[in-house]
Order: sequence, then C-alpha cells, then structure tokens
Amino acid sequence: MQKDFTLPSTKNGKSQIVFEPPWHYGATYISSHVKFDESANELLPDFLTTDGEGFIYIAEFISMSDSTWDYMYQDPDLVQYMEGAIGLKVIFEGKDYFYFPFMWVDKDWALVRGWLDGFPKKIAKISMSRLHPLLPKYNKPEKGLKLGGYVVRGGGVMFRLQVNLEEKTDSLPTKNFGSYLNIRRFPSRGNGEEDLYELTSRVRDVSNYGEIWKGTASVELGGYVNDEVDLLKIKEVYAGYYYTSYFRVTETKLLKKLVSKMNSF
Amino acid sequence: MQKDFTLPSTKNGKSQIVFEPPWHYGATYISSHVKFDESANELLPDFLTTDGEGFIYIAEFISMSDSTWDYMYQDPDLVQYMEGAIGLKVIFEGKDYFYFPFMWVDKDWALVRGWLDGFPKKIAKISMSRLHPLLPKYNKPEKGLKLGGYVVRGGGVMFRLQVNLEEKTDSLPTKNFGSYLNIRRFPSRGNGEEDLYELTSRVRDVSNYGEIWKGTASVELGGYVNDEVDLLKIKEVYAGYYYTSYFRVTETKLLKKLVSKMNSF
Amino acid sequence: MQKDFTLPSTKNGKSQIVFEPPWHYGATYISSHVKFDESANELLPDFLTTDGEGFIYIAEFISMSDSTWDYMYQDPDLVQYMEGAIGLKVIFEGKDYFYFPFMWVDKDWALVRGWLDGFPKKIAKISMSRLHPLLPKYNKPEKGLKLGGYVVRGGGVMFRLQVNLEEKTDSLPTKNFGSYLNIRRFPSRGNGEEDLYELTSRVRDVSNYGEIWKGTASVELGGYVNDEVDLLKIKEVYAGYYYTSYFRVTETKLLKKLVSKMNSF
Amino acid sequence: MQKDFTLPSTKNGKSQIVFEPPWHYGATYISSHVKFDESANELLPDFLTTDGEGFIYIAEFISMSDSTWDYMYQDPDLVQYMEGAIGLKVIFEGKDYFYFPFMWVDKDWALVRGWLDGFPKKIAKISMSRLHPLLPKYNKPEKGLKLGGYVVRGGGVMFRLQVNLEEKTDSLPTKNFGSYLNIRRFPSRGNGEEDLYELTSRVRDVSNYGEIWKGTASVELGGYVNDEVDLLKIKEVYAGYYYTSYFRVTETKLLKKLVSKMNSF
Repeated sequence: MQKDFTLPSTKNGKSQIVFEPPWHYGATYISSHVKFDESANELLPDFLTTDGEGFIYIAEFISMSDSTWDYMYQDPDLVQYMEGAIGLKVIFEGKDYFYFPFMWVDKDWALVRGWLDGFPKKIAKISMSRLHPLLPKYNKPEKGLKLGGYVVRGGGVMFRLQVNLEEKTDSLPTKNFGSYLNIRRFPSRGNGEEDLYELTSRVRDVSNYGEIWKGTASVELGGYVNDEVDLLKIKEVYAGYYYTSYFRVTETKLLKKLVSKMNSF
Repeated sequence: MQKDFTLPSTKNGKSQIVFEPPWHYGATYISSHVKFDESANELLPDFLTTDGEGFIYIAEFISMSDSTWDYMYQDPDLVQYMEGAIGLKVIFEGKDYFYFPFMWVDKDWALVRGWLDGFPKKIAKISMSRLHPLLPKYNKPEKGLKLGGYVVRGGGVMFRLQVNLEEKTDSLPTKNFGSYLNIRRFPSRGNGEEDLYELTSRVRDVSNYGEIWKGTASVELGGYVNDEVDLLKIKEVYAGYYYTSYFRVTETKLLKKLVSKMNSF
Repeated sequence: MQKDFTLPSTKNGKSQIVFEPPWHYGATYISSHVKFDESANELLPDFLTTDGEGFIYIAEFISMSDSTWDYMYQDPDLVQYMEGAIGLKVIFEGKDYFYFPFMWVDKDWALVRGWLDGFPKKIAKISMSRLHPLLPKYNKPEKGLKLGGYVVRGGGVMFRLQVNLEEKTDSLPTKNFGSYLNIRRFPSRGNGEEDLYELTSRVRDVSNYGEIWKGTASVELGGYVNDEVDLLKIKEVYAGYYYTSYFRVTETKLLKKLVSKMNSF
Repeated sequence: MQKDFTLPSTKNGKSQIVFEPPWHYGATYISSHVKFDESANELLPDFLTTDGEGFIYIAEFISMSDSTWDYMYQDPDLVQYMEGAIGLKVIFEGKDYFYFPFMWVDKDWALVRGWLDGFPKKIAKISMSRLHPLLPKYNKPEKGLKLGGYVVRGGGVMFRLQVNLEEKTDSLPTKNFGSYLNIRRFPSRGNGEEDLYELTSRVRDVSNYGEIWKGTASVELGGYVNDEVDLLKIKEVYAGYYYTSYFRVTETKLLKKLVSKMNSF
C-alpha cells in the first residue's frame, strides 16, 4: 500500500497535493465580530441553527506540512495562501460550535486540505493590506491605522472589510464560539454507495497569538449566483481586529455520521 | 436531510460548489499519443502497472450540471474551464484501464468535481490555441495547421504540446485504453477512522465526437518539486490529434475498496 | 538604430512586448447600445462632451502582428485576450467621435498596444459566454439564446452585461458614432519636458463583420475606488448585440497636440 | 486642461492608472550578483555595451503615490506588487549605468508607471518566500535561512532564484553599477510622426536600506519565445542578498533623444 496522504499516488509520494499532518499555520488576520439577523439560518444545513453571532475575516497564511518546509524556498506558492471566510456561532445538539458556511482561498492545496477536514473552500481572488517597516506611513500596527481587504469570486464581490485600529487587547471573541464544526460530504456516485455527511471537529493541538489589536470595522456584503452571501444581513458590527497567530493541526474528531438516501440513482 | 450534492449545505442549495449530475461536457482537444519508457511506473500506485503507452492532452471545456445551464450567461466562469492531463494505459488485476496520474484544471468546481470521481486535479495555468473564423489564417482546422498549448503550475512548466494537422481520421487511439480507472482517497483524519482508497471507474453515458484531425506532435515534458512529470521519458511520439467531443457523466462504478492502516495516528 | 517597434530593445528584437503593425483582430462580441444620462460628461476631459449615447461591450480577441502568427501555437497567451469597454459618442471641435473612457484587457501586450494608440487600458478579469457546437443547448447563436459576461478589477465589479438574442441584423449602431478618438498622454517626467496630450484617431484599414444578432440587453454598472464607472447612470438600454468581426490596424492619425504646463516640477 | 497625470482623463481624476509623483516604495528583495558571459550584449540596443556584470532580483513592493495612501485599505491591489528583474551594468557614451533588459511585475499600474519612466515591464506570475514571526522555523532572517522565488510568464519560466543567508553586510554591489539608464520608446504611429527613443535616468530622491543579508545564491535561467532570457549564460554567481529598502521617486533626467526613420510607414 502507498504512503500517500493524498493523490496522486506515486512511488516517491512527491506529487501529492496535500502532505501528511502535522500542518503549521502562521497567519495575519483582519476580522470583524458581527451580529447577523436571523436570515443567517438560511445558510445552514437543517441540523444547525444560529442566533446570528458571526466572525468575518481575511487572512494571509504561511503554512506547510512537517515534511514540506523546503517548499518555503523551492516554491513559495506551495506554502503561501490567502483566505477569506464568514463564520457563525451555531448550535448542534444543544452545544455551541464555530461553523463556516463560506471559506475562500487562492491555492489548490489549501482548498483540498480544507475539504479533507470539512471546510467548504472555493477559489477566489483575495486581497489584504500589508505593511512595510520602512515606509513613512503604514509601517506598523498602531492606533488610527486603517487596514482592509476583499474577496472576489467570479463575477461577484463576496465581501469587503475595513478595520480601524484603536488599542491592543488580550483575546478574540471567537474564544466563546465553541469548537470548530466541520462537514465532510461524500455524495453517492454510484449504485450501492452511501450518501454521507460526516460532522467532525478540527482540532488545533497548538495555538498561539501575537499582538491582537481591536478597533472599529466596516463590512460590505456582496455575493453572486453561486455564493449566497446576499442572504446575510448585518444587524450590528461589534468590533474589528487585526492579529497574528500560529496554530498546528494534526487531526479531526468525528462527531456524527449522517447517511442520506436522497442522492441514490 | 439536505438536498445538496456538495458543500456548502444551505437551504436553497445554490452555493454548492458542484451540482448534482448529469454533467454535460463540450470539449475541444489537442493531444498526443505517445510511448513513455518504463519509468512511467514510478508515477503509479503499487496496484497498477503500465507498459508506457500514454495520451497527453490539453482541452477547453464548456461544462455544466443539468441544473446550471443558466450559469452560461450569469457567470461563464462557472461553466468554462481549461484542462491539461497526462494519461497512461495501465493494468489493474489483469485488465486494461485508462488512468491519469496528472490532471490540471483552472477552476475550483472542476477540481472538486474531479476529486469526487477520483481524478487528482490540481489548479494550473493552461493555454491552448483558439481559431477565429474571420482571421485570414488560423480560421479553421486544415492540413498544415499548427496548434499548441501548455500547462504551467507554480514555478514549473508541466508540459508543452504542439500538433501539426495532416488529415481527418475516424477515431482516437484511446478507444483501446480500456475504461477509466479512478482513485478516490479518504485519508484517516482521526482516531478510529479508516484510511481508504476506492478504485472506481467513471462512466460516460453519452459520448460523441465532432471532426477528428490527425497529424504529428511535439511534446516537451517539464515538472517541478510537487509534480513529478520529470520522471516520464518519451520513447516515441506516435501522433497528434485535434478534435471536439461531447460527453455526459452521471455516475461512477466502484471497482474495489482498499483499506490501509498506515496513516493511523 | 534598432529595429524594435517596442521595448525591450534587443539585437534579434524577439523580446519586444508589441511587434510592428499591421495587427490582425478576430473578435467575438456581446454588447449593448445604451443612453447614459448627462453625468457621463464627468468621465470626459474638458475638450470633449457627450449627449450620453454609449456602447458597452465584452469581447474575446485572437490578435497578432503580421510577424507573430507563430505565437498561435507557440504561446496562445500572446495572441488571445479578453476585453471589456465602455464607449461614448463624443463631440470634439464640432464633430462626432467614438471615445472610450474605460477599456479593460487581460494581457500585458494588449494593454501596451492599446496605450501606444491612446486607449486607456487596465488589466481586469473578464469573462464571457462561449458556445460549443456539440452541446445539447448553447451550441449556436439563435433566437432566445442568452449570453453574458462581466469585468472585475481589483475589489470591484466594473459591469455585468447580458444579451438575449432575437434576430439577425445588418449593422451596428456604432457606425453612426464617428471615427475613433484616442488620447496619447506623455506626462512630463523631468525638467524641460513637455507635458503632452496627443489626440489621435486609430484607423481600421480593413473591417468585416460575420453574423450580427440583435436582441435585448441588461446592464449592471459597478465601479470602485480607481474606476469611476459609478458616475454613469443608464437612462435607456436600446438593444443588445452578439457578433463577430475581423479588422486590421496599421496606423493612427494625429488630430491635435495639447501641451500643458501643469505637471512641471 | 486636465489635472490627470495619466489616463483615463476624468473630471475628478480618480480613474487614472498612475497618479502624480512622488511615489513611495517599501520593498523586500532576494537577489543575486552575477557575471554573465559576453552574450549578454545580445540583449542590449546598439548604443549600449556590457562586460556581463549583472544583478537579478525578485521583490515584493508596497508602493503608492502621495495622493493614494488610502488605497492601502481601500484596495490593497492598487499598492502591492511583485517584481522580478534582470539588470546589467552597461556602458553608454563611456560611463557606467544600471540597465534592465527584463523587468516583470504583476499589476497594471506598476507596468504603466514603469513604462512612463522607461522600464520595459511585462506582466508575469512572480512568487517569493515570505516569513512569519510566529512559525517555529522561517520566522526571521538568520544564518542558514534559504529563501527563493521565480518569475513565470506565459508558457515559460523566466528564472528561478534561491539565496542561502550567511551574514549581515553593509551595502550592495549595485552601488557601483552607476545611475539607472532607462529607455522611453515612442514608435511612430502615423504619417509625419517621429520614431523616438529617449534615454533617461530615473532618480531616487530618497533611498534607505534596512538589514542587508549576504550569502550564496543559485540561479536557473529560462526564457521562452517572447523573452530571450535564454541568450544569457551565467559565468559566475558572486553572491546572494536579502534586504529591505525604502526609496522615493519624483522625476527622471533626460540623457539623450534618438530619432529613427526606420518605422516610417
């Protein structure tokens, strides 16, 4: 049997799109803590509900498997990606979880790695402010600094986000959102195959933060024919954040299997 | 239970990345029938072997689910994609199959749809000649016309292909390659989960061809750190082809399940 | 002296971004004839005025210099580009001209070639319906067919356009828009340099049309911080068109030089 | 007369592709000081010669006009770009200059701004290592760190560059390359128009460096049909560098005008 974590399966295993965990993530985020109205439930499967508390972010990641540190200099595209996401605090079987109906990235391996763990990633164009230490302005995070970005997919702007920094803070509101809730979907593709939803929870076995800045935020929601972001309405923007983070992922925990008969042929 | 074929799972189902089959494919190909040397086996999992007969192509697809014809005018990016691939005639349990160690596309939904059916797709930049009926040259396929293209991923050229048309022909050499052999890979992501390879065969329930042109071809193989195309050596280029095709896909047939213990944590 | 038409200037001249004319253009368009309100004058330099009659299009081009036909198979990216544009019928010194405040393309050589002749091209993501002859639907232009596309630049949708075909027609409304009016801009970059606007008119020395289809159209205008498309308001959408065209360009005619002193340092 | 520095010329001036200088540049570079063989002269116009001393770099820029600082958060794509370049120490009329036969960027405004000042920029895909302060490795520049990147245009890899850091140093070898030498090219586009080359020198009115790291480097040169990088042969790689820099540009100095008659029609 092969030693490939993912395809394509070759003798050396060097062509696989995602390498075996642990995976390392160094990230820089702009984000906003928001309250959506109850229409946010339109974006959830039947077994989840939300009161509309949400978290929107854009982030730049440097990320690799333990076995692909050399990609850092051999092919930076294989360790760098941008991500934009819209997350909701949801309730599943009476317990709070952090669930993402929308997550966009700009690299194939980040997409496939996400799907392996139940994040419904799509490819988009994602842009975010970057500072430079030698510029006369915008050279470091500080009070009054404005940062922003956006996610664009196909013919639509998914969202734009701007954050205005005010002060350092100690933690993020997502610490109260619960564990991650992910959905792995295995649609039946032929006779006699199960049509399966696996509810899992991705685990961060290490998680650190650098500086966390808090301030105000403005969010413009868009969406288009294949991304129902327009179903979301913002009731309140609580705050904006800018922060760096490191985390490590090795495995997911299986919460529940749901077998459907609907997609039988 | 939801009616989503794929994620994200929403009430209307309009955000899913791939919609339920049947899927329609209108395609235009340039391709080359080649013989690789025996090193081609380096690109196969242990349960497959090849004598090196191969088929390389670049194609432009217009493709949709029965339920997404409206994307044709609403968002053409959701029905158009480019694809490049390197295929091998392989033997599995004594029978010939057509297997693709490498397949690159340029859209997320084409990638995810491919992975659902066991094609190890990655995202690449893919370019191919296109004709225009009103140009003074290159206005239609004809003897002497040269067509070409390439696939580039990250920091490497995967391959370049050029075809020189000579005459119309009736069929393609791939009719002797056998059925498709696909691998669906479900790596174990946590305690108690199977680490699974599913060998399946994708079925085309309708398949038509337009004009098929045959001629000579030239192929330059590249590859880079995450795509071992460099392990392939061409012994002979048999011919080049340019053709159009329509096919429809509804399901895959499960050939075998292989459960590994290797990726347990 | 070198024989390069454009830079970089090398001994063989093979690296130049745009090669010497004549240039050939094979194009497929979707477009809309519209009436903007008088705010369209906000998008014009002081020496031009408009009554708001306009023409919006998205097109796919196959285009080359007489000396670069081989790029067709060597590197299709060097002969293929997408273009989206917003044009206005303007008055300059009492005469009608066809002027483009906005023109977006997706290739560098198309951009530079445009700037040489006074089109203010920017790079954008441009998408447009493409038909395939073997698909069960959308296989040829016909009554009732809907085609569409869009232009997206950075964080904003510039415009979306959809056309619903009704019948074949003989000509386009732009035949009454006058000759092209282009602006070449040479800002002063140092002491003693003129700050120059050259008004020129690009000439098509051959121009043919294939089938022209007429129908209805819908246009959504967007724009963002660096593209003031939002200043345009549509009063009426007269019609939509789908057509193919071939034209050839060799030179421009200089209409007037305007020297400014404003940008002196 | 308009107040636009570049096109398109509108009443508010907010749509112009490049805004008036001064322009600020915050940059992070990996680079290599090399000796090419004498074939490097093949890449020069007749009025320049080189002994083959060269400088190759890939850089990430945050750059804006004094009037476009707000683009930092409104649209980061309008202030961020990647650049790759191959430079040569050349002799013009007996004096040393620093000249770039090849320069690739990934944004339209960076391309047009370059052409205004005589840099022959093309659009390419450019990738370069980025560090993250919270990662367990690759969190800061230090002895032994490997950084790399590449430039890919169309169907060809232009070059790949890797640098292995050894120690901090005080300056770069390019301080001995002379002032910049740029070529502005205005090909004749019609009857009675001059066909013009303007030799100018771009001036940095402020220029600072952050940390400069020196080490070894490896360079792989590529090129393809429209980029004659393959004419360069490396005789020696002297060293590799990693550094940050800030500079400001306001104007260029005109060195000489060369009028050709060759492109008359």
